[in-house]
Amino acid sequence: MPDAFSFRVLATDGAARHGEIATPHGPVATPAFMPVGTQATVKGLPPEAVRASGADILLGNTYHLMLRPGAERIAALGGLHCFMNWPHAILTDSGGFQVMSLSELRKVEDKGVTFRSHLDGAQVELTPERAVEIQVLLGSDIAMQLDECVKLPAPRRELERAMRLSLAWAERSKRAFEQAPPGRALFGIVQGGDDPQLRIESARALVDIGFPGYAIGGLAVGEPQEVMLRTIEDVAPVLPADRPRYLMGVGTPEDLIEAVARGIDMFDCVLPTRNGRHGLAFTRFGPITLKNARHADDPRPLDEASSCPTARQYSRAYLHHLVKANEMLGAILLTTINLAYYQELMAGMRATISTGTFADFCAAAREGWARGDIPVQ
Amino acid sequence: MPDAFSFRVLATDGAARHGEIATPHGPVATPAFMPVGTQATVKGLPPEAVRASGADILLGNTYHLMLRPGAERIAALGGLHCFMNWPHAILTDSGGFQVMSLSELRKVEDKGVTFRSHLDGAQVELTPERAVEIQVLLGSDIAMQLDECVKLPAPRRELERAMRLSLAWAERSKRAFEQAPPGRALFGIVQGGDDPQLRIESARALVDIGFPGYAIGGLAVGEPQEVMLRTIEDVAPVLPADRPRYLMGVGTPEDLIEAVARGIDMFDCVLPTRNGRHGLAFTRFGPITLKNARHADDPRPLDEASSCPTARQYSRAYLHHLVKANEMLGAILLTTINLAYYQELMAGMRATISTGTFADFCAAAREGWARGDIPVQ
Repeated sequence: MPDAFSFRVLATDGAARHGEIATPHGPVATPAFMPVGTQATVKGLPPEAVRASGADILLGNTYHLMLRPGAERIAALGGLHCFMNWPHAILTDSGGFQVMSLSELRKVEDKGVTFRSHLDGAQVELTPERAVEIQVLLGSDIAMQLDECVKLPAPRRELERAMRLSLAWAERSKRAFEQAPPGRALFGIVQGGDDPQLRIESARALVDIGFPGYAIGGLAVGEPQEVMLRTIEDVAPVLPADRPRYLMGVGTPEDLIEAVARGIDMFDCVLPTRNGRHGLAFTRFGPITLKNARHADDPRPLDEASSCPTARQYSRAYLHHLVKANEMLGAILLTTINLAYYQELMAGMRATISTGTFADFCAAAREGWARGDIPVQ
Repeated sequence: MPDAFSFRVLATDGAARHGEIATPHGPVATPAFMPVGTQATVKGLPPEAVRASGADILLGNTYHLMLRPGAERIAALGGLHCFMNWPHAILTDSGGFQVMSLSELRKVEDKGVTFRSHLDGAQVELTPERAVEIQVLLGSDIAMQLDECVKLPAPRRELERAMRLSLAWAERSKRAFEQAPPGRALFGIVQGGDDPQLRIESARALVDIGFPGYAIGGLAVGEPQEVMLRTIEDVAPVLPADRPRYLMGVGTPEDLIEAVARGIDMFDCVLPTRNGRHGLAFTRFGPITLKNARHADDPRPLDEASSCPTARQYSRAYLHHLVKANEMLGAILLTTINLAYYQELMAGMRATISTGTFADFCAAAREGWARGDIPVQ
């Protein structure tokens, strides 16, 4: 009998929390970073390589999967876990964010959003109920309510309208999710842009509706980091301490430690995978651009002290060559290195929250990034 | 102390041979298929995945590596094995074939060939001596002489000229290779197009010069399979039985069994890797085009009896989805499956040559390909 969704906090250090989420597909240690598996694959990596990086949960994109290959098809094939050969936990988003960023001719109404598919131009309707239905078909362990995410900066009136619409959709999503198989969870999403009052109102109303977990959406959409951190500071205290808090679409390694320090438990972001495909490595020394000619003759690995074999076994010269030659293996190795670095960072946070030394860990990480890359010999 | 190059025949069955090549980087069981690692990577696979497919030797392309990242650079970085993290055997071609097929404004003279790089237009000279020097710098276990390969059909006069030039280059290559570190080998290349007399003359003259192994070049360049097989039948008996015979740039699974049946020991070809990137799988049931819509809802693996976990663990529906969505993982999984199938085929040939049942093995393989793919349920 698989575990039902639950969450327990195992240790705290200031506002930072280390905990564990139980899911029907195994436990998730928090703070957790979820690699993004947009089209039923983390780009460039077989699932066993994603697992080897340290991930115990990944994110699937409802928008992409509903359009291709289709939610009903994936359900008939045994669900997303089976389809993509990933037996561990999966969180799916609601599709709302990608509708806003990828599709054309979208129309937002109270009942839902209609849009044209970016693949073939077909008109598609996504309602809160359909978003839940799709995620149930996919079989995700954690589903997200449909919400409306507004790009910043935006007028307050617009932020308020989208926040209230998202609240109405939260209620309908919760009702629709009552039909889901037992053990799975649906999270509500706090909206309100960069307006503290709207954010607090949104969070309180969601807590009144009641969800097993809460996300903060509508950030990492162009605002300065300080706005994001202040919003977390406003919202986190309103959310119940015994429920996980998920900051959507974030972020850089620095974003992650700052958000964890403010009480966030879960993250997803395309940065480690997308930047890896574009020749950028995340390391203890900060980001390193492998295309740079200074690496061409450098026999040293990216980081000989890394826990990731790929970061230790290949020379910078070789990674530089692969990136310059536009070889798939360059994207594969850098994606591997980046996901491992992100997971190493999360593991370090979990360990030091447990021992009450989280602040020291963050200071050391920041110091390493500030010192920059080791000089060429 | 690493092994010096040597070859011994372990078993024969008709003209087919099973043997073992010793190299400074480990043994190579023959008949052997060498995956192509053009730009210091087998496209889409980390070296441990290439190894896991069953390969104990791969091919590197001198033309690509001399232009980028450069032979002197690779030598300074410890040689090609170290550069690409492949500790097993490597054979390099001479660069001649790609000069003919990829570069512009090439000029063939007695002293060598000059051409413009397809990367930046720089003028480059490649002589027999320089081709050997580059391969020594790369550190390849088996180097190839520079030759001139002529596209078929071609006038006899042209075939004869290129064959004689290749013979002159063979002598110069052998002399230049006397400077190579001990234990490595240089192969001569039989030319002569589709003309039996020229082929036999070329083979005899090369044997007179004397090489530790012989290749048949200038095939798989557009001629019918029967011309290729007849050429092997003409040439193989002229070559010494105690030296490996390498058929360059071949081929389909059927080509491989036909050539082994005629005494060939080594092959290289881009088909399993290139076709894998284009959505085609080689299987016991013949080639399967994963893009075909009939796979979209098929939960069955490509081949549940395969020795390759990838061919057993992913559904046809998932592979179809990845190929349609143009996801890197589609290319990665199909490349893995194809290389494993090729190696499984070679292992099957080696085993059945040893037991004197090679003809049965070939008949069963041909029967499977002819029967075609298992029907959709």
